[in-house]
Amino acid sequence: MRILGIDPGSVATGYGVVERVDGQVVHLAHGTLRPPRGAPLPERVALLWRGVTEVIGAHAPDVAAVEQVFVSASPRSALVLGQARGAVMAALGEAGLRVHEYGTRTVKQALTGAGAADKAQIQRMVRSALSLQATPGSDAADALAVAICHAQASRLTALGVSVGKRSGRGGARGRAGSSWVVRRGR
Amino acid sequence: MRILGIDPGSVATGYGVVERVDGQVVHLAHGTLRPPRGAPLPERVALLWRGVTEVIGAHAPDVAAVEQVFVSASPRSALVLGQARGAVMAALGEAGLRVHEYGTRTVKQALTGAGAADKAQIQRMVRSALSLQATPGSDAADALAVAICHAQASRLTALGVSVGKRSGRGGARGRAGSSWVVRRGR
Repeated sequence: MRILGIDPGSVATGYGVVERVDGQVVHLAHGTLRPPRGAPLPERVALLWRGVTEVIGAHAPDVAAVEQVFVSASPRSALVLGQARGAVMAALGEAGLRVHEYGTRTVKQALTGAGAADKAQIQRMVRSALSLQATPGSDAADALAVAICHAQASRLTALGVSVGKRSGRGGARGRAGSSWVVRRGR
Repeated sequence: MRILGIDPGSVATGYGVVERVDGQVVHLAHGTLRPPRGAPLPERVALLWRGVTEVIGAHAPDVAAVEQVFVSASPRSALVLGQARGAVMAALGEAGLRVHEYGTRTVKQALTGAGAADKAQIQRMVRSALSLQATPGSDAADALAVAICHAQASRLTALGVSVGKRSGRGGARGRAGSSWVVRRGR
């Protein structure tokens, strides 16, 4: 199973592609899409849309994974992030990819065993987990991290443990970290 | 000149196509894109992206017009609006269309002569301005309104009056209504 992880952002959108082979997670590619600063919004988000579409075309992932948004910022920055996220999600949806969302804490736990980790720690852990020769940039590392998180979650699912959003509407929806639970079998 | 007006929204995205012919504004088409409620986000925003792309394919507009966002809502609703807006903007950018943004008050002034008007007034004025046989829905009316606004602004430009964003970065950026000024010639 090939997984595309994405960390959407207006200034930089990281992506990472990993493959789960015999219980191992193997690195295939990563990078960062950077719309030209100062370009008009339609041009910027079209670049994100096109970039993600090209990555999908090049690596043919089976599924995508994205971090849930924890909205604590100002309405203005939430709008700006939303615009980047909408363009990325439209490209994933247009390619027919199912997208799994994971809270920040869940992603950090999957990598470091702890729910709290700074950017540099994530970069180091991603490099180590995938045996990369160089430390990936922060945005690409976050994208690889959520892809690794999904690789682990889907492995657990295959073993009979389900990892997913808490059922029912509303409630924990949209809250990072807390809206994902691990439940045993059925 | 053919203008595509769009009113992006998560639940409903209105669109309207008008043409400026000899100083007259003529209606060509309008409608509303409604992603299925409860569908996953990537599917919803992909539908907006595809819908806008299809409208562009069907009507070949020369330019697009969209309302500026006045962010007064919660970060959560700003994110949701941003995601819809990002998908729409990506489709406009991907089609190579230049997008003009107008503040809400500017759009209302263009239609009613006043900066304040409720949704029903906008619907009536749009119907009257374009001699439509039926009153368009609220989202489509807002989309037609911003298209009409651009038709008027571009007519003024052709007459030597420039209508545009105030120059310089920051400042009034992102504030509805106030960031557009009318300046004489050069």
